[in-house]
Amino acid sequence: MADKLKIGVLGASGYTGADLVRLLATHPNAEIRVLTANQQAGQPMRAVYPHLGGLDLPDLVKWEDADWSGLDVAFCGLPHGTTQEIVAQMPDHLKVVDLSADFRLRDPDVYAEWYGHEHRALQLQEQAVYGLTELNRDAVTGARLVACPGCYPTAVLLALVPIVQAGQVDAGDLVIDAKSGVTGAGRKVAQQLLFAEVGEGIHPYGVAKHRHAPEMEQEIGLAAGGRPVHVSFTPHLMPMNRGELVSCYVRLSDGETADSLRARLAERYAGEPFVRVLEPGESPATRNVRGSNYAVMNVFADRIPGRAIVICAIDNLVKGSSGQAIQNMNLMTGLPETTGLGQQPLFP
Amino acid sequence: MADKLKIGVLGASGYTGADLVRLLATHPNAEIRVLTANQQAGQPMRAVYPHLGGLDLPDLVKWEDADWSGLDVAFCGLPHGTTQEIVAQMPDHLKVVDLSADFRLRDPDVYAEWYGHEHRALQLQEQAVYGLTELNRDAVTGARLVACPGCYPTAVLLALVPIVQAGQVDAGDLVIDAKSGVTGAGRKVAQQLLFAEVGEGIHPYGVAKHRHAPEMEQEIGLAAGGRPVHVSFTPHLMPMNRGELVSCYVRLSDGETADSLRARLAERYAGEPFVRVLEPGESPATRNVRGSNYAVMNVFADRIPGRAIVICAIDNLVKGSSGQAIQNMNLMTGLPETTGLGQQPLFP
Amino acid sequence: MADKLKIGVLGASGYTGADLVRLLATHPNAEIRVLTANQQAGQPMRAVYPHLGGLDLPDLVKWEDADWSGLDVAFCGLPHGTTQEIVAQMPDHLKVVDLSADFRLRDPDVYAEWYGHEHRALQLQEQAVYGLTELNRDAVTGARLVACPGCYPTAVLLALVPIVQAGQVDAGDLVIDAKSGVTGAGRKVAQQLLFAEVGEGIHPYGVAKHRHAPEMEQEIGLAAGGRPVHVSFTPHLMPMNRGELVSCYVRLSDGETADSLRARLAERYAGEPFVRVLEPGESPATRNVRGSNYAVMNVFADRIPGRAIVICAIDNLVKGSSGQAIQNMNLMTGLPETTGLGQQPLFP
Amino acid sequence: MADKLKIGVLGASGYTGADLVRLLATHPNAEIRVLTANQQAGQPMRAVYPHLGGLDLPDLVKWEDADWSGLDVAFCGLPHGTTQEIVAQMPDHLKVVDLSADFRLRDPDVYAEWYGHEHRALQLQEQAVYGLTELNRDAVTGARLVACPGCYPTAVLLALVPIVQAGQVDAGDLVIDAKSGVTGAGRKVAQQLLFAEVGEGIHPYGVAKHRHAPEMEQEIGLAAGGRPVHVSFTPHLMPMNRGELVSCYVRLSDGETADSLRARLAERYAGEPFVRVLEPGESPATRNVRGSNYAVMNVFADRIPGRAIVICAIDNLVKGSSGQAIQNMNLMTGLPETTGLGQQPLFP
Repeated sequence: MADKLKIGVLGASGYTGADLVRLLATHPNAEIRVLTANQQAGQPMRAVYPHLGGLDLPDLVKWEDADWSGLDVAFCGLPHGTTQEIVAQMPDHLKVVDLSADFRLRDPDVYAEWYGHEHRALQLQEQAVYGLTELNRDAVTGARLVACPGCYPTAVLLALVPIVQAGQVDAGDLVIDAKSGVTGAGRKVAQQLLFAEVGEGIHPYGVAKHRHAPEMEQEIGLAAGGRPVHVSFTPHLMPMNRGELVSCYVRLSDGETADSLRARLAERYAGEPFVRVLEPGESPATRNVRGSNYAVMNVFADRIPGRAIVICAIDNLVKGSSGQAIQNMNLMTGLPETTGLGQQPLFP
Repeated sequence: MADKLKIGVLGASGYTGADLVRLLATHPNAEIRVLTANQQAGQPMRAVYPHLGGLDLPDLVKWEDADWSGLDVAFCGLPHGTTQEIVAQMPDHLKVVDLSADFRLRDPDVYAEWYGHEHRALQLQEQAVYGLTELNRDAVTGARLVACPGCYPTAVLLALVPIVQAGQVDAGDLVIDAKSGVTGAGRKVAQQLLFAEVGEGIHPYGVAKHRHAPEMEQEIGLAAGGRPVHVSFTPHLMPMNRGELVSCYVRLSDGETADSLRARLAERYAGEPFVRVLEPGESPATRNVRGSNYAVMNVFADRIPGRAIVICAIDNLVKGSSGQAIQNMNLMTGLPETTGLGQQPLFP
Repeated sequence: MADKLKIGVLGASGYTGADLVRLLATHPNAEIRVLTANQQAGQPMRAVYPHLGGLDLPDLVKWEDADWSGLDVAFCGLPHGTTQEIVAQMPDHLKVVDLSADFRLRDPDVYAEWYGHEHRALQLQEQAVYGLTELNRDAVTGARLVACPGCYPTAVLLALVPIVQAGQVDAGDLVIDAKSGVTGAGRKVAQQLLFAEVGEGIHPYGVAKHRHAPEMEQEIGLAAGGRPVHVSFTPHLMPMNRGELVSCYVRLSDGETADSLRARLAERYAGEPFVRVLEPGESPATRNVRGSNYAVMNVFADRIPGRAIVICAIDNLVKGSSGQAIQNMNLMTGLPETTGLGQQPLFP
Repeated sequence: MADKLKIGVLGASGYTGADLVRLLATHPNAEIRVLTANQQAGQPMRAVYPHLGGLDLPDLVKWEDADWSGLDVAFCGLPHGTTQEIVAQMPDHLKVVDLSADFRLRDPDVYAEWYGHEHRALQLQEQAVYGLTELNRDAVTGARLVACPGCYPTAVLLALVPIVQAGQVDAGDLVIDAKSGVTGAGRKVAQQLLFAEVGEGIHPYGVAKHRHAPEMEQEIGLAAGGRPVHVSFTPHLMPMNRGELVSCYVRLSDGETADSLRARLAERYAGEPFVRVLEPGESPATRNVRGSNYAVMNVFADRIPGRAIVICAIDNLVKGSSGQAIQNMNLMTGLPETTGLGQQPLFP
């Protein structure tokens, strides 16, 4: 056990917390020492998540009561707005992988506009590295604090950043239609997330107002050379537990085709262990990534001349959250990037 | 019984056939006299569809063995390519409501290109009226042969034709992302429609190659004043039985806004019994139309300047097929248009 | 409109309230005049149930603010424990169809034991008729106050009472395994009813402790000649919106067989419009009753000699609640029993 | 790689084949060398199962074309009736883990009665060890040929054998109500397994006629000291991909209680890595074992005196098939039993 990283998970009562535990349980270099959940403090983890009852885990504690000094890594799965001050109090030696939205946005005004309050740890935000691993690997490797992307931005940016960087598409005319399973909303107890409200149906939500939009715009703007962009982003809620599919409708630059986009993506992700550009014509499907850290994508010709369609699928709780967080931890601590992430998709 | 329309349903073994029977069962002016299903001929309908076992229905027969002379109306729910010659042999007095693709496309070359064979009853195709009721009511009223639109075109055209006709959007830059339940594919026994393949997942299919695209292009082209257009159309298969949601991403003409589009639609459909433009901000949801003949729609502002989002939801088997077919029958036979279609949505 | 019953629905914000409205909307002799929902008072019904947005309905009011004097019938869909005092204040001319548990149990001690408080309107409870229509038609017809059975008791008692009455099975050894969709729990906002908690899974709940057990025991005891019985009752929660299937494992009296049980049920329900005993070997399935007032059942031989299996399926919100309530209203007001209940099952 | 077991999977195109590959992919001592699928021979595995596209796997071949000489272990996931002759031709050194029904039944007459043909390798059947690991560990360890139990028998026998062996319940009055996801039927392309037929519904199938009944009766009879028994077994098909829950209604021997049964099971499975007896009152749920090799169970008091309820949940494709097969392989080859089976349940 001497060579194992000592891990704390803040906010272990959320779905992302539970999925971190699931994945870390088979990680050969990780040992969970602290699990916090302020409302369920004092309970064993299996009281909150019976599916983890086969594991030997520490009981849930309040974050104030946890001893951070002996840990190596902290994952933060807290609601936005609460992480900033907690992280600011953590000892410096601790590597922090944040799964909340608190350190994703570089512009404090944008943060304040979308989250309704001033940022409370601006100096940390400046240090934070945006943890979309494949696109920011070098910075993640040396980081102390990584802000893991939102689930939608993960899928969208993997699909679009390389072709925006290459100038192959118009960064100002990106239309993104996203479909997500219900765990994207976390374990929030709300009428609109009841089985009877979601089952046998689909509907859009937060049309053109979803908080992941500014995050995408920030990164796409950077990829486009720093100019401000707006994206059209419409998420839909559908009856499945896990999975996220983004269908991106793009306007091609002169001379570009669906094939040239696909070639660019294939080249960009050649050798990547978790990103796969499918064979021409193959459809990305969320069932083919369920429970795994994979992202799969493809590009299709459109019937409208000058347009193409880029589609990407991930598991929102894994590559879109906990899996990518562990991928980042591996880099930050010098482990091989794929350590503990070999789980293949669960299909059916 | 004397004043009841005598009805025959061809292809009663498909889901659209079954839903026709379900709806006609409570139609006060309809009496089902003939049900055909060549492969199940000789069986009672309840052997094929046990949920209809509470009804007193004629047994299934081969279409060749049915006596059409005493009927008033025939609904045809046959696979494409087989309807043409059968309808050509029907007596002239019979009103024909076709739910297949065979009479939807006015250009025989387009039909041949997409369906892989020459059209076999061109003179009938010329007579056929495109039965999107709200947009073609007068022609339907006097028609002998109505070609009911495909499920996707029904939702898309209801949402887009009025704003294309009014010149409010660029007809050449319409991006349509559609999501459908599995019954859109009928009762076809195929691996990709197994529960285990569809459950807990979503994926696109027929990207930019779906047979409903030319049908949309035909009608949108007409609405745009007759010029040829291409539409971007990407359907997705998702784990629900019924329901279809189309999210249409449109480029606004100068001076137009999401509000002006919504106002146009609200004006166009004021007084329509089955089409509702929702209050500003309300999301169309398939659960709110399930099992009913309603279409609900709304328009949203986009983050990209000069763009808007038009979203429409229907039940693919009702407004997208059998319900609209009965709506057309009512018009063709002089009945009030809403007769027998008062069923409210089944939620949850 | 003069000949229409004027209807009030108390507790219209629950799923049973919504399904009452759905069904009453096509009832030719009913007119909804009052909808109460104390927490949503002041809102239009479509704000709470958008799927009913196509109907012209009164806004929601508090029950204290409703005028009961002009009404003919009140449906009460309130939580248990709250109905008793409200009904006690209603004018005598009003027919009351109660969908709560408040008037189902004849023994006040049993009520107090299972519901945790004394009954507050014992004189009303004495007048209340147990509204399992097919088994208690005469009493329902003349009643002023009908207590509609719980959803599970409806399916179980339809399947078992006739064979218990005939002495064909051992009333003291009835094992009932039930499976229900999530709407059985109402629109309660609780973690265990979230989509992500229910989707892709099944589990038992309230094993041997469910409040519907004493109700079944009361009626089976009566059918057994008045002797007290205990039943084994284990409900399971499964991922569907509507539907309930009860599998009843029974010990046969000497000389009885699965066939003799089936024959008894077929004879008992011959001519019943809403109860169907299937052909030998056919499986009852919830999909075949969804959205309708039907109950379907069958009897199967068991491999253990001296045992048989009786299985019954209903839609918990229709025959198990709102549909049966309307069936009772029809009887209580002298209308044909099937009026307004002709909706066929929605399949798929 | 030198110390890795060389593995062949026959019938890799079925769901159990795919799940074997999924699990073996992270098994540290296994290397897949051969994948057979006669109808898809020549294709890469990812053409049949795109979710496995991230793995480096051999292409599919016909079983006749595979070289068995260099392999250590063969998993057979073939349809019943086809495995016998193939296994008879395999080299003696090869350990064989069979997932079909072909070697489960010890009495050839029983096999012939339920599977419709004579057994074709009786001498192998005599050698075959029934591979319910926890109950037959010693025999499995030394076996060359292991017949893995059916999914239903796995859950039922884990729950019942210890209490039957101890004489705590009446082995002649076991009533088993089972619920299964659709993958229990394999990847068979059949109408009754279409999403639209299974979604939003539940129904029993094969009532008192399911082929897993004789298998349960064989093992329960042995546990009861060798006397023949019949069990009441009713499976139900429900809308989920994976998971199986069995609710067993048992008659207690004198002096026994639900608590004494639970105590016996807890004692019997103390220390078992994959079987967990839950805390009193906790409900077994399939969601809590999904994708994992766990079985979870509990015992509940019944309302009928002298009865109790034993409930067990597994993932039918893992503990009910591929996971248990690997567990057996580990034992047969001298590896620690849990090797490669550390995957925790995927919830939600």
